[in-house]
Amino acid sequence: MSHPDTSPREYVEAVCTGAKNAARELSALDDAQRTRALRAGAARLRDGMETILSANHEDVAAGANDGMTPAMLDRLTLSAGRIEAMAQGVEAVAALADPLAGTIASWTTSRGLEISQVRIPLGVVAVIYESRPNVTADVAALCLKAGDACILKGGKEAIRSNAAIADLLAAAFHDAGIPANALQLVRRTDRETTAELLKRDDAIDVVVPRGGPSLVRAIAEGSRIPVIKHYEGVCNVYVDAAADLHMAEEIAYNAKVQRPGVCNAMENLVVHRRIAAPFLSALAPRLRAAGVELRADEPAREILPDAVRATEADWRTEYLDLILAVKIVDSVDDAIAFVNRYGSGHSDSIVTADAAAAERFLARVDSAVVYHNASTRFTDGFEFGFGAEVGISTNRIHARGPMGLRELTTYKYVVRGEGQVR
Amino acid sequence: MSHPDTSPREYVEAVCTGAKNAARELSALDDAQRTRALRAGAARLRDGMETILSANHEDVAAGANDGMTPAMLDRLTLSAGRIEAMAQGVEAVAALADPLAGTIASWTTSRGLEISQVRIPLGVVAVIYESRPNVTADVAALCLKAGDACILKGGKEAIRSNAAIADLLAAAFHDAGIPANALQLVRRTDRETTAELLKRDDAIDVVVPRGGPSLVRAIAEGSRIPVIKHYEGVCNVYVDAAADLHMAEEIAYNAKVQRPGVCNAMENLVVHRRIAAPFLSALAPRLRAAGVELRADEPAREILPDAVRATEADWRTEYLDLILAVKIVDSVDDAIAFVNRYGSGHSDSIVTADAAAAERFLARVDSAVVYHNASTRFTDGFEFGFGAEVGISTNRIHARGPMGLRELTTYKYVVRGEGQVR
Repeated sequence: MSHPDTSPREYVEAVCTGAKNAARELSALDDAQRTRALRAGAARLRDGMETILSANHEDVAAGANDGMTPAMLDRLTLSAGRIEAMAQGVEAVAALADPLAGTIASWTTSRGLEISQVRIPLGVVAVIYESRPNVTADVAALCLKAGDACILKGGKEAIRSNAAIADLLAAAFHDAGIPANALQLVRRTDRETTAELLKRDDAIDVVVPRGGPSLVRAIAEGSRIPVIKHYEGVCNVYVDAAADLHMAEEIAYNAKVQRPGVCNAMENLVVHRRIAAPFLSALAPRLRAAGVELRADEPAREILPDAVRATEADWRTEYLDLILAVKIVDSVDDAIAFVNRYGSGHSDSIVTADAAAAERFLARVDSAVVYHNASTRFTDGFEFGFGAEVGISTNRIHARGPMGLRELTTYKYVVRGEGQVR
Repeated sequence: MSHPDTSPREYVEAVCTGAKNAARELSALDDAQRTRALRAGAARLRDGMETILSANHEDVAAGANDGMTPAMLDRLTLSAGRIEAMAQGVEAVAALADPLAGTIASWTTSRGLEISQVRIPLGVVAVIYESRPNVTADVAALCLKAGDACILKGGKEAIRSNAAIADLLAAAFHDAGIPANALQLVRRTDRETTAELLKRDDAIDVVVPRGGPSLVRAIAEGSRIPVIKHYEGVCNVYVDAAADLHMAEEIAYNAKVQRPGVCNAMENLVVHRRIAAPFLSALAPRLRAAGVELRADEPAREILPDAVRATEADWRTEYLDLILAVKIVDSVDDAIAFVNRYGSGHSDSIVTADAAAAERFLARVDSAVVYHNASTRFTDGFEFGFGAEVGISTNRIHARGPMGLRELTTYKYVVRGEGQVR
């Protein structure tokens, strides 16, 4: 990687050339080599703990000086325990099944050509993220396991920590026979460098932004490279007339309260009119005890007179907080129409004992993950059994919903003939 | 669809709203309904032959008046035979297997959730194309078979023909129970309307440009919506030292001469030094007899003294014409490096009897389709056995290489539980 003392364009050019060359070489390695390198990387993180902690100490001091909030400082701060968890995370990725193994499909054509559709690495993956330095190790590990070269651009506030982690991993990977520049951390934190990176669709195959909606939006709008977006989750739980009300109460409570600040938490509770009174009367005191503010439409406010009146904007809002919008509907079709209109296509659940209503909801709600009788909180790579998670995609193409190693790969066709011509 | 007398923005808003609503309704139909509607559409094209021919006659007269070349006029002109072929094409799509059938994967998680990954329509597909009016029927049929709503924008020169075809099909589809606006042809031909369409990532899920590289580039650069690009094919054939020279000659001749104006035709012939003299001496007279101009590097010019000297630019050029660049290399690795450097990642072939060299080339050449002992001309949806072709994608994600019905679909996760919470 070239020294940061060049122009953003020259700097990005050097990074991109390095990544492209590394990607070519990486595609020739096998899973055993990639896995060995990951194990060596985990060991090097443990050996380099003091180096990481000292770099992190500088970041935290600078952040405190710049007036970062305690919550932001907490996300930034590393400890021996957090570095050990990072090393274990790298080992967990190493232990996953080879995402490039196996053939997707194979067949022989009428002309006798043998066609195989095989998995290959995506190529060069750029990840742009904020704050937490463990993302550096997580993403580096996932990309190497998938055979991708990665270009990591973390936040300015974590640059020393990210550099310490990336340097240790890159050295360990290289010692284990991985091509130089398979892992590159962008050392410049100016906006021009990001803008230059996002122009390089000749070198970078996909960009994954990890951060708040404003970061994702800025990258999606500025990028010529395909972006795997992780936008908001306006998730809905619909409690049908035929629901087991105890089950519905547990699911609604869990989906709202267990971790309200994440994208798979419920934002809208949609309730069938017929069971609204008993259901909401039982649930509301529990939600209020957990500190949840209720915003309700007029029919729901007859049951919940203390609730704030919900506006049109509430149905579309990702609160990421202890706030819940409550809507009463007259049928499963009304619920489906509401979810498709106001939800964000992330994760939505129906609670019902009526199999026909459930199948109708599952078929017609157009979201990445649709649930019957379960909390929306299960939309997660680990809960899905993917072992590791790149994030949760809100794209409709290539990757939808929880994104594991497989979504860091693509395919090509290998065709074997005996001299066929057209 | 609203009348064209509104602003581009209002017009596009009406088209997008119609398409979104249609997509929702389409996703609830089954393959039998979609197939019946396609058969009805084919019959309606036959019944409406006079209407189409008369609209086409007006387009052709206007084109002749505007100074279109004979080749362009030929592409624009319809006949009874071409309309019959269009109707048969719609019937052929109807007869294909349901692209939404089957489950991609299903498993039970450690928490007992049953997860199914199921195929669903992509949603709303916009196709922007030039000249040939049969694209209207082809794309309308493919999108309906996949359950997608489509927005078609053809060229100004074919607007009357396209409108006649789209009106007949849309009426037949609607009579067969397909939602209104499942098929919409954009009636405005101004650039502002295209620009407005390409902003509507809230309504349109994917854009497929079908046309020359300048059209594709303009759309890719102006679009907020994911674009499935069909860029150029700089395809290479490498003749190894261990090639059967007779087979290599047939493949090279076919790949260059059989249809030079298409993206899967060979542009660069890469030859191992050891067999260059006998191979090129036998091939060159046949190529010259077919009217092929040869451009060669210095070592090849010693064998082909009449050849023009090839420049760096030649190796990167998609001639789409009877021109061939010839390069001599010293090894399969040199050939791989050449192909990865100068090719466009479309289709590349190795001719060899050496299994190890073949596997090395197939593994290391980073192209959508890699061949052993076959012509690059087989990169085609029909030759691959997909039955119909949307085009040949040069994207790395979602769709790579020949694009069939499956690439007009996406997936969602359906999760069935028994009250699970986190």
